[in-house]
Amino acid sequence: MKEYNGYKYVNGGVCAAKGFSANGLNCGLNPVKEKNDLCIIAADVLCNTAAVYTTNKVKGAPITVTKNHLASTGGFSRAVIANSKNANTCNADGIEKAEQMCSLAAAELGIAAEEVIVASTGVIGQILPIEPIKSYIKPLCEGLSYSGNESAATAIMTTDTVKKEVAVEFVIGGKVCRLGGMAKGSGMIHPNMATTLNFITTDVNITTRMLQKALSDITKITYNCLSVDGDTSTNDMVCVLANGLSSIPEISSEGAEYDIFKTALYIVMSEMTRMLAKDGEGATKLIECTCAGAPVQECAITVAKSVIRSPLLKCAVFGEDANWGRILCAVGYAEADFDIDKVDVDIASSAGSIAVCRFGAGVPFSEDEAKRILSEDEIQININLNQGTASATAWGCDLTYDYVKINGDYRS
Amino acid sequence: MKEYNGYKYVNGGVCAAKGFSANGLNCGLNPVKEKNDLCIIAADVLCNTAAVYTTNKVKGAPITVTKNHLASTGGFSRAVIANSKNANTCNADGIEKAEQMCSLAAAELGIAAEEVIVASTGVIGQILPIEPIKSYIKPLCEGLSYSGNESAATAIMTTDTVKKEVAVEFVIGGKVCRLGGMAKGSGMIHPNMATTLNFITTDVNITTRMLQKALSDITKITYNCLSVDGDTSTNDMVCVLANGLSSIPEISSEGAEYDIFKTALYIVMSEMTRMLAKDGEGATKLIECTCAGAPVQECAITVAKSVIRSPLLKCAVFGEDANWGRILCAVGYAEADFDIDKVDVDIASSAGSIAVCRFGAGVPFSEDEAKRILSEDEIQININLNQGTASATAWGCDLTYDYVKINGDYRS
Repeated sequence: MKEYNGYKYVNGGVCAAKGFSANGLNCGLNPVKEKNDLCIIAADVLCNTAAVYTTNKVKGAPITVTKNHLASTGGFSRAVIANSKNANTCNADGIEKAEQMCSLAAAELGIAAEEVIVASTGVIGQILPIEPIKSYIKPLCEGLSYSGNESAATAIMTTDTVKKEVAVEFVIGGKVCRLGGMAKGSGMIHPNMATTLNFITTDVNITTRMLQKALSDITKITYNCLSVDGDTSTNDMVCVLANGLSSIPEISSEGAEYDIFKTALYIVMSEMTRMLAKDGEGATKLIECTCAGAPVQECAITVAKSVIRSPLLKCAVFGEDANWGRILCAVGYAEADFDIDKVDVDIASSAGSIAVCRFGAGVPFSEDEAKRILSEDEIQININLNQGTASATAWGCDLTYDYVKINGDYRS
Repeated sequence: MKEYNGYKYVNGGVCAAKGFSANGLNCGLNPVKEKNDLCIIAADVLCNTAAVYTTNKVKGAPITVTKNHLASTGGFSRAVIANSKNANTCNADGIEKAEQMCSLAAAELGIAAEEVIVASTGVIGQILPIEPIKSYIKPLCEGLSYSGNESAATAIMTTDTVKKEVAVEFVIGGKVCRLGGMAKGSGMIHPNMATTLNFITTDVNITTRMLQKALSDITKITYNCLSVDGDTSTNDMVCVLANGLSSIPEISSEGAEYDIFKTALYIVMSEMTRMLAKDGEGATKLIECTCAGAPVQECAITVAKSVIRSPLLKCAVFGEDANWGRILCAVGYAEADFDIDKVDVDIASSAGSIAVCRFGAGVPFSEDEAKRILSEDEIQININLNQGTASATAWGCDLTYDYVKINGDYRS
């Protein structure tokens, strides 16, 4: 994990920032009683809110409802309600059910339904039963706590094997601020969307416009550089709620304060991106591909994403085989403009680093050393195009028997 | 298999057309003595020749040499030499070795080196040993036979489990013509290239310009609509050799004769595409996705390709699970312009057909019937966008444990 001066990792996830409470429970959507399936995040005061959504033409009903709500409030919200097990997508009454989830939460919290963001994840194309949610909305809201982040983070998990929470503390204008988030997502993850569900909260005081700008910029170099399987989901959403309770002067333009905030957002989002990649369905290894020496950043992003998406490379990493030809092949079919004959490739991990390709051609290397490097569970593929100064990182995972098993099973 | 009036399937592969001989043998590139690894196709007379190549920036040395040869002769050739086990790509002396393969064949056949097309398939980034080829070039050429197609077709196989040969007979202007081909390719197969190695021969008399036009048009709707794993190889090539020995008047423009020829090319190439998909690495099922009702053909192609490429759908087909939400999801992220709310989806096989989605939403269906349909080994996914008259088909296969096994194994 990279170290950033002046930023400190803290516990608390979405409850790390001042004035955010959360709760999660099992309402019966998931028959496994021990697995939470419904959660809520509530803010003490109205929050400036930014969001990015899936680019899939098939959009889950919760996406439509959330978009409408943020449009009607002009970018404000006070709560998030989310469920797992059913995506509430491609069914007859999805919009109605998503609206109902918001109304139920709003009534309990004493706020307007339009101030609620709604999200669902799970199987596509089935009717969402609203009864379980209706029955449990009261205990869900009554149980809201400033330390309820974990029960919420586990409620959005589907095939995830670990919960994903990150939070950091930093200082703006002498005041301590915090920003934290939770995420879920394991399969159906691919660039050009904002990965399944991600909720971020902060007590930084920042305009909706600057919040949206920071979120869109950071999404481009974090979540949108993540691929587990090349499938772009229908329900992906990242949203950030900023309640301003740190009582710093409002950030309304670019400058030093904005940069501090944006870096905090990058730390949390890139860290969650790594966690999502590492917990990809069936994954045994994280693959982190950095493309440096690119003429422009867009080119670096395209190349890095092309590499982490290659099924052949993913299988080779699973097999711990330094099959660099597959890396160069994936660099070669990346749709970007560069000279392939200048490309260098190194493979690295905490066990060391080896050069496998120089000027687009193979160089001799020790297979034993390569094997040792690839036996670690976090693998770096470092590409240098040697034709510029731009760089980017993309995150993925290996392709394993378990990915096939998980997704070959009936209606997972 | 579709029936085409006036076209008859015949045996003989690349030797089906008049005036083409072939041979294949094991020269020692492959340590398994029973597995052919080197082949040659020779034409009795100079042939008008068209080719399409991989779009990967990393191009195998044989691609470069073949392109140069066809450029220097102005689109003529008399022979093809090809090897498996080593792709002769991303190494120090690839061009030199590819040129040597041509010179060796040319010397034996008494033709110019520029009249030889060369192709290699196998591992990337290793030096191609020329000695085995040099030692066996004489028996290879001496063994040329008008029934040698099978020994040639097996020589280009890598992880292929079956040889791929198709040939048809048809009539142009009262004369019997033939067109046949052989192909290989199992992994590293994806749209936007011409699939690994494909050689087609015909005795039709047609100009190089019209031959190239037909090949490019048909490639777009056959090989370029095939995806096994989304990886575009570095060495892909399709080439067609037309020797004119059927003694029909030369086809030099569009018209009835050109259409007959083009349909023959479509039959052979689409049939080989199906064979390639069905023999995808680790595949147990062929997936054939047809998108109809599209506003333009480009849209139909994009949608059909998006579906057969989805790893989640491929796993579901392997698991015989009618998870239509994954189909609609892949339709939704296809980068084409259409209204998702009009989309219908049916799943079919020789065991029947069921509607699973109407107007972009799920419809009730019998899971038992779905299971019965999906238990067959050739699965059709029929999508109707209901917003036009254009259509296209794409071919793929399921994603299985064996794909992971084959590609996780050391340097396959």
